[in-house]
Amino acid sequence: MIELLDTTCRDGQQHAEISFSSLDKYHILMQLDRLGLAFVELGAPGFNLKDRELMTKPLSTTVTRPCAFGATRRKDTAPEQDEAFRTLIDCPVYDVVLVGKSSIAHVREVLKTTAEENLKMIASSVRYAVQKGKRVIFDAEHFFDGYRLDPDYAVATLAAARENGARRLVLCDTNGGAFPETVKSVTKEVKNRFPDAVIGVHCHNDNGLALANTLAAIEGGATHVQGTLLGFGERCGNLNLSTLIPLLTLGMGIELTPEVRLGELTPIARGIAEIANVNLPDNMPYVGRAAFAHKAGMHADGVLKDRQTFEFIDPALVGNARRLLLSDAAGKHLLLNKLQPYFPTLTKDDPALDSVAAALKERESNGYSYEGAEASFVLLANRILHGKNAPYDVVNYSLHDNSEEGEASAQVSVRVGSAIKTATARGLGPVHALDITLRKCLVSFYPFLNACNLIDYKVRVVNPSSATGAVVRVLITSSDGKHIWQTVGVSPDIIRASFDALTESYDYALTMLTNER
Amino acid sequence: MIELLDTTCRDGQQHAEISFSSLDKYHILMQLDRLGLAFVELGAPGFNLKDRELMTKPLSTTVTRPCAFGATRRKDTAPEQDEAFRTLIDCPVYDVVLVGKSSIAHVREVLKTTAEENLKMIASSVRYAVQKGKRVIFDAEHFFDGYRLDPDYAVATLAAARENGARRLVLCDTNGGAFPETVKSVTKEVKNRFPDAVIGVHCHNDNGLALANTLAAIEGGATHVQGTLLGFGERCGNLNLSTLIPLLTLGMGIELTPEVRLGELTPIARGIAEIANVNLPDNMPYVGRAAFAHKAGMHADGVLKDRQTFEFIDPALVGNARRLLLSDAAGKHLLLNKLQPYFPTLTKDDPALDSVAAALKERESNGYSYEGAEASFVLLANRILHGKNAPYDVVNYSLHDNSEEGEASAQVSVRVGSAIKTATARGLGPVHALDITLRKCLVSFYPFLNACNLIDYKVRVVNPSSATGAVVRVLITSSDGKHIWQTVGVSPDIIRASFDALTESYDYALTMLTNER
Repeated sequence: MIELLDTTCRDGQQHAEISFSSLDKYHILMQLDRLGLAFVELGAPGFNLKDRELMTKPLSTTVTRPCAFGATRRKDTAPEQDEAFRTLIDCPVYDVVLVGKSSIAHVREVLKTTAEENLKMIASSVRYAVQKGKRVIFDAEHFFDGYRLDPDYAVATLAAARENGARRLVLCDTNGGAFPETVKSVTKEVKNRFPDAVIGVHCHNDNGLALANTLAAIEGGATHVQGTLLGFGERCGNLNLSTLIPLLTLGMGIELTPEVRLGELTPIARGIAEIANVNLPDNMPYVGRAAFAHKAGMHADGVLKDRQTFEFIDPALVGNARRLLLSDAAGKHLLLNKLQPYFPTLTKDDPALDSVAAALKERESNGYSYEGAEASFVLLANRILHGKNAPYDVVNYSLHDNSEEGEASAQVSVRVGSAIKTATARGLGPVHALDITLRKCLVSFYPFLNACNLIDYKVRVVNPSSATGAVVRVLITSSDGKHIWQTVGVSPDIIRASFDALTESYDYALTMLTNER
Repeated sequence: MIELLDTTCRDGQQHAEISFSSLDKYHILMQLDRLGLAFVELGAPGFNLKDRELMTKPLSTTVTRPCAFGATRRKDTAPEQDEAFRTLIDCPVYDVVLVGKSSIAHVREVLKTTAEENLKMIASSVRYAVQKGKRVIFDAEHFFDGYRLDPDYAVATLAAARENGARRLVLCDTNGGAFPETVKSVTKEVKNRFPDAVIGVHCHNDNGLALANTLAAIEGGATHVQGTLLGFGERCGNLNLSTLIPLLTLGMGIELTPEVRLGELTPIARGIAEIANVNLPDNMPYVGRAAFAHKAGMHADGVLKDRQTFEFIDPALVGNARRLLLSDAAGKHLLLNKLQPYFPTLTKDDPALDSVAAALKERESNGYSYEGAEASFVLLANRILHGKNAPYDVVNYSLHDNSEEGEASAQVSVRVGSAIKTATARGLGPVHALDITLRKCLVSFYPFLNACNLIDYKVRVVNPSSATGAVVRVLITSSDGKHIWQTVGVSPDIIRASFDALTESYDYALTMLTNER
């Protein structure tokens, strides 16, 4: 039985791009409580006013214990005289993570104190916290590096915490440079020394081995694991819990306490990425958008013949889904699989399916790629299967950009039935100007399109050999707050390609999402 | 001694977002040859016409062996009658990677043939290739899964390859679901069975353990490792070689053959990310922008007091730099290294070097990236070191694009001394039109610029959260037939960013290449 502690809100915030508000942290806590983690570290109330405010509010969770984090008291003082430390202990949160130094080198060079004073700092801080009714998790900073330098001293720091009431002793690879064999053997020795303590591990990924080191610690007897759900953290990040969780439960048959809602792992992971405003890498194990994506014709065929051929688990177990990437190599089988969610009556023998396949092949030879633009693909199929076109026509657009004005200006005319709407607008660049102008026109007919926003924009040159005369492919990602969809435009003219992808984005919202409104 | 094979150009291309042109593959080969990898797999000439064309050209490398990839012959035919297989073998590349099935389940369910016929497919394909003078690397697909189902059969597939002349037998974890302990013990058994063969390993990262599994295989006796420099690959990607290389050499003291230029790992990794037009995750171990970035006040202080407190290796060893310190010796060293080929009199103590570093830092914070745009970087340095600006001024440009005309039109005015030249032209799109118009102006002053051509054009949205209002980075690759150079432009306006990259391309030709004329 392994218990997990998530430190996305504390160590995760050291990630170069991330900064959480108190509300963000609260939402993350709620998501991780829903997932079912044992502990969530929210921040350092002794040092951070916002964290203090957050933790004085009632934080009602179902299974997760919120934790406050802080360092042991400063050197040469009493716990109650160290203001940051006292603030931490006064904070109305039952579980407290106390970090102390375990490496004699850091005691001397960073703390600039004696070996004895550091042991006293740990002992008196833990004792004080326990006396005040706290449950203490002791994070032994630089434990593995410290153990290499002076194992007796490193173990003495754990003993100082343990003997004063800390039941959880967490061995930290703070620099992220440890190796699995060492982690395993050191953890084993620590567990033998403190048989009635819960031994924990806290790994960083600087050498790419955070996960392997964590598994090694578990083999060595660790039963408490710290990490961040998406691997956020300083430098190369912390242990990624979204990889560890399915690996332990599905791969190794190890139980978690409390039990985790594995089937919600992917949506919760993506929700937290949204809160952090970070693009989750597509190839993140288990939860990434490409984690179960198949591109090669042979592999995609194999997967459809027999799931196990190219998938080691069923993606639904972790709340993810198989994604078959469309390319002209795709077979009819694959195509049908892609289209049935949108067109449930379609069958394999429908001749229209051949027409869709032919159109796909032809468009891909002209530079289109539907792998990242499923919305455009659905619109293409809708035109072929149901003869449905966009509910509006673009009469024309024009774009002017001038080095002296520093802004681009656009004009767009749109016809719906017999009504024509023309608008003009300026933007930071041509695509921005066209987007604003096109939306101005469309919103007068379809006000709900105001909720739609572009959230990503990508450009590729398809045949770079002829460079600026080459064909350009534009991929646009849009959202209405509930759905996310991607469209594509292709042209030798980047303005035209962008405009086509923009109009398809609105077409998709109008034709495929309206029945939900 | 471990030898490495990079398959960025083949397996890496299965990554959802990646598609390489032949020129891209050639550039990647050159970069990896410079890095010093043993083998680079370029593609599958039996299936892909572009790969075939690339591999019939002379590919002169210094240490790297280019490899062609393909499957064993189809069932129930002879090698010389299988056109794709024959095309592979006819391709004038000495090293051939042949993939065959090692799992009895896949033989029956995907190949739909008998156990015996699959062994014959492997045997006759390897024999034919060897007879035609090839060196064969045998990739045993799904080896670990197959070994679990039927170890004798899995080993028999290796024997079929080995006995017919394949010296390298590569055990593939095709689904990426293996665990280190199994990988180690199975590799050891295979090595015992084939003591004079080179045993290789090919891992995927679906369970986050590609690196741990590769290390386990090495412990078990593998000496050939396949992966992709940046971990690109289908689903969750292949083993990341940019993590493995420093881990083996610096962390474990294991030598690579040939020796790798470790100090160039980071720039080469970033160069390949640019070619792939993919954002390298900031937290990628060793080579990511944040791999040695320090945000925490305490950690930053610690690092200043003593490097080892929060860094487990010196970032300069892998060509990366700590991100806190601008005047960091490693960063300056790298900068000097970059600049000395262009400015041979520059020394480490020149205060202008600090100015270049400061300008670089400032521009990078505004969205510039010089890793794929060395020409722009040299121009920037030239302005700072010698106060040299472009020999001409752009007075203005304007661009008009209209949906009805189907072409873009541009006007550009350029001043050289007191002479002004204005030109107008049309193009297939705005960048094409501006390029033609700008060149029209410049050629009247500098006729030799007629030899310059754009050969590649790339666009990246730098902060995608604000989509079409975000900053856009344009990278342009130009050539005069003898040299190839890259320039960058950054702006919220894609037209402006493209125009800036265009003018820098001509600036570079005028200021840095003229003394060769």
